[in-house]
Amino acid sequence: METVSENRAFGGVQGVYKHHSHSCHCDMTFGLFLPEEARDGPVPLLWYLSGLTCTHENAMVKAGAQQWAAEQGIAIVFPDTSPRGEGVADDEAYDLGQGAGFYVNATQKPWAPHFNMWDYIAEDLPSFLQEEFPIDMSRQSICGHSMGGHGALTLAMALPGRFRSVSAFAPIANPTAAEWGRKQLRAYLGDDEAAWAAHDSSVLMRDKGFDGPLLIDVGSDDQFIDLLRPEALAGAITERRQPATFRLQKGYDHSYFFVSTFMEDHVAFHAEALYAD
Amino acid sequence: METVSENRAFGGVQGVYKHHSHSCHCDMTFGLFLPEEARDGPVPLLWYLSGLTCTHENAMVKAGAQQWAAEQGIAIVFPDTSPRGEGVADDEAYDLGQGAGFYVNATQKPWAPHFNMWDYIAEDLPSFLQEEFPIDMSRQSICGHSMGGHGALTLAMALPGRFRSVSAFAPIANPTAAEWGRKQLRAYLGDDEAAWAAHDSSVLMRDKGFDGPLLIDVGSDDQFIDLLRPEALAGAITERRQPATFRLQKGYDHSYFFVSTFMEDHVAFHAEALYAD
Repeated sequence: METVSENRAFGGVQGVYKHHSHSCHCDMTFGLFLPEEARDGPVPLLWYLSGLTCTHENAMVKAGAQQWAAEQGIAIVFPDTSPRGEGVADDEAYDLGQGAGFYVNATQKPWAPHFNMWDYIAEDLPSFLQEEFPIDMSRQSICGHSMGGHGALTLAMALPGRFRSVSAFAPIANPTAAEWGRKQLRAYLGDDEAAWAAHDSSVLMRDKGFDGPLLIDVGSDDQFIDLLRPEALAGAITERRQPATFRLQKGYDHSYFFVSTFMEDHVAFHAEALYAD
Repeated sequence: METVSENRAFGGVQGVYKHHSHSCHCDMTFGLFLPEEARDGPVPLLWYLSGLTCTHENAMVKAGAQQWAAEQGIAIVFPDTSPRGEGVADDEAYDLGQGAGFYVNATQKPWAPHFNMWDYIAEDLPSFLQEEFPIDMSRQSICGHSMGGHGALTLAMALPGRFRSVSAFAPIANPTAAEWGRKQLRAYLGDDEAAWAAHDSSVLMRDKGFDGPLLIDVGSDDQFIDLLRPEALAGAITERRQPATFRLQKGYDHSYFFVSTFMEDHVAFHAEALYAD
């Protein structure tokens, strides 16, 4: 592990670290905020999965999450959104390839050897965090923004018992039916749409649901709302009678100004689940 | 005026605007957060002056100030740190020219025609804000970071009655005696050091002081502390018996992680002065 940087923040430490990912077959960089309490023993962990074009850094500097994590005594990890570096495939489009891993394991060329973000988030990075940092892996929750909201929702539903609560800011909620989704699922997983369903939170919500609390915020003026299709997820939540809070926030758009405005609510929501029992 | 962007944030609006500056003889861009209360009438104003290399954008996205301004019902303006654009002089160094205006009116070539950041902050931008936005100009306070802390302190002391309170994060506190200062003051104001004293907050503190409350935070692990010379300002404050709170924050550095950690305190400090009487 290489320590890229460590800055004191809100009584804790905002670190940036680089490690070798066995899933992605390359070095990966992530941010980790550890609150002051981590000096005395393991603390709960909140995952924050970022959206298209982001690295580990965007939310770390713009979402204003650390202050609330410090207040609650929980750690937050900010993974990158794709493999990167020499020999890693890419595409000219902002929404495919590097910065756009979509939290799946790619089976198609040229993505297959490195683009295994599902395994990276589900297996590789958790193992590494458990070994290297004072984190209580029995207390994990997950959230994300846009493509990261998609990742948070699909991982939470596919890994029952892993995460105590899940939330999303403006998630890509129905990728099998929108251009933010169909393009990437086809590129990474191939033409057989049956393989896509495991990566659509609206489909998963209908089929499985989530055994825990769920919080979704979407801005009513989100400029990408037609690509996100929150109505599909809202419909699935309602049909399933999934315990959830789904909020349309008047006048807000897709930006980090929207995310940071409601971050306090999301961290408090997860803290309640993380400290239950 | 050109509206570059407007995003809803914390119940208010984070705008970015471009206007023609009479002082700097070029177009200037600034950020302005207006809280929800501004829809009903004029609100108090907090100035945030940024440091070397920054534009209007850095603090706007990284300092986490809007949430506290929203809570207090005050506006925050984020000016740029220098003139920019075609025909505006620059230097290869990060600490001279564009991004490094140092809040002075340059008298020397090649800076003299455009680099009038003192007048821009003291006269030009206030007039513009008063004309265009619902701001109560009888209620203003000022803060800043690093070079912006220098600007906030010198403007506050040089313009008695203008600002009700002043604060700084890791200010360049004694620029006539440090390499962050001597280089720029010589370039902008010439070799006669007598002209520099009006832009040294430690000198101004000895000579005039500030008629209001003052708050200073400096990280004990600030990597630039030898260039900032906070000890000179602390000495001057003490000798003058200036009412002030001066804090060395253990383990913090010069970054926005430091600034954002203590932003809540600074905004609350200014709000108390802005709402007095």
